[in-house]
Amino acid sequence: MLNEITTSQNILRFNGQDFFEDEDDIAVETALTIVVDGNEFATMVCTPSDLQELVVGFLASEGVIRAYQDIKSLQIDEDRGFAYVDLINKHSVFKEFHSKRFISSCCGKGRQFYFHNDVKTAKTVMTKLTITPEQCRKLMKQMQESSSHFQQTGGVHNAALCTSDGIVVSRTDIGRHNALDKLFGYCIIHRISLKDKIIAFSGRISSEVLLKAAKIGVGIILSKSAPTNLALNLAEELGITAVGFIRGNGFNVYTHQHRIQGIESLPAIIGLDD
Amino acid sequence: MLNEITTSQNILRFNGQDFFEDEDDIAVETALTIVVDGNEFATMVCTPSDLQELVVGFLASEGVIRAYQDIKSLQIDEDRGFAYVDLINKHSVFKEFHSKRFISSCCGKGRQFYFHNDVKTAKTVMTKLTITPEQCRKLMKQMQESSSHFQQTGGVHNAALCTSDGIVVSRTDIGRHNALDKLFGYCIIHRISLKDKIIAFSGRISSEVLLKAAKIGVGIILSKSAPTNLALNLAEELGITAVGFIRGNGFNVYTHQHRIQGIESLPAIIGLDD
Repeated sequence: MLNEITTSQNILRFNGQDFFEDEDDIAVETALTIVVDGNEFATMVCTPSDLQELVVGFLASEGVIRAYQDIKSLQIDEDRGFAYVDLINKHSVFKEFHSKRFISSCCGKGRQFYFHNDVKTAKTVMTKLTITPEQCRKLMKQMQESSSHFQQTGGVHNAALCTSDGIVVSRTDIGRHNALDKLFGYCIIHRISLKDKIIAFSGRISSEVLLKAAKIGVGIILSKSAPTNLALNLAEELGITAVGFIRGNGFNVYTHQHRIQGIESLPAIIGLDD
Repeated sequence: MLNEITTSQNILRFNGQDFFEDEDDIAVETALTIVVDGNEFATMVCTPSDLQELVVGFLASEGVIRAYQDIKSLQIDEDRGFAYVDLINKHSVFKEFHSKRFISSCCGKGRQFYFHNDVKTAKTVMTKLTITPEQCRKLMKQMQESSSHFQQTGGVHNAALCTSDGIVVSRTDIGRHNALDKLFGYCIIHRISLKDKIIAFSGRISSEVLLKAAKIGVGIILSKSAPTNLALNLAEELGITAVGFIRGNGFNVYTHQHRIQGIESLPAIIGLDD
């Protein structure tokens, strides 16, 4: 059951005049509880695909592991929705700071992190990678075409890890963060070099999405949708080029514009609010 | 600063041929930490509006309070992003079960809850309210028109509490759950009767969204987007009519179709997966 990511269901459709019975593909959503060293660490709802990558990416994102080798064993009970992780080194302290508010020590100039684990895991990205406007549009188009499930159900997010030439791997989830954690897990398990990588994402660029990109370690994030101001402040600080509203032929460049070829010569204009 | 929910920012726009400088409205996103009786309870990112309602709705949703009277004092430090709540009765145990996985005691027939606090707070809805197809479409249209911010930034979700005649109150947030928690807080603070109420929502109907509707206590949820199968299973069980893909003149009715006028006479066709 858990391997299906869509399910067919009978529904009633109204076409403006009449009701009629029809069959519809619905996105499957399931609960997954991650147990680390015998302790319940977190429960999430997700699309039941690529669960090993999801667990690895989530634990890396939370700062529980740094590399795949930190995991001694990982077993997934798909039927009951549990993932059992044993670590090489027991992290007795990680629960202390998990999801705890991080208070910046000075006002105004401190990094705008709000969780302790983000301080530990989101690093400044230094890549020299650049892409052309045409590549921005092409990658977004490929990412959208790679998801047949979205077209079926309208209910999932897609994240694709790309080079400037095309998609390396693409992941789907009903949760925006999960789609990115699955990519993160893929990169960690397969030790993917991030220097020349880009993320194309179907959802908005919120602060949480931007922080995931920084944790994964990509220098460019492409979205067909809007960013938030906190995401842009973090992008500015973490060295990430945020490109949004990639629709039709146009798009907006919000931060670190030097990575988009053709605008290197324009003066710096980004004045982020403090 | 925190009272602004959008901010103007200089960006670079690409129109398919050239880059040019432009000004854009960006959705403001801020961190809010809720401290209950001196203990950090949760940190969320949100749109900085209606924060009192957000805190009250969130605490009710988590089962920490049942009524507004359970709160002795509530102070919000908007600049630092903290809400300090003191309760009438100290809840020494609530941390124990907060976000802990709920394991159903029997297989297959148990409620599909995955958190303990949902078991406590999401009740079956018994309302006899019905609406017409025309009202479904009209309420969705009004909900969308009520949000000037979405039109400005493209980055927020909207939730509207309605009667069959029109919108009572509408709330906005970058986080889908927050928009619903703000509505929940409004209902609790103003002791709104839910019997004749409907929620119109801009986002997908995930299990978390459906559970919020059940906690608030409305019998009908309208969405322009898709549901998940777990949301529909919960809707079936909790007595909620889920209507999705309200676009143009049409829509889909997924569960408890008897509340949509004109289809009472059709045979029950909904065969949800177990």
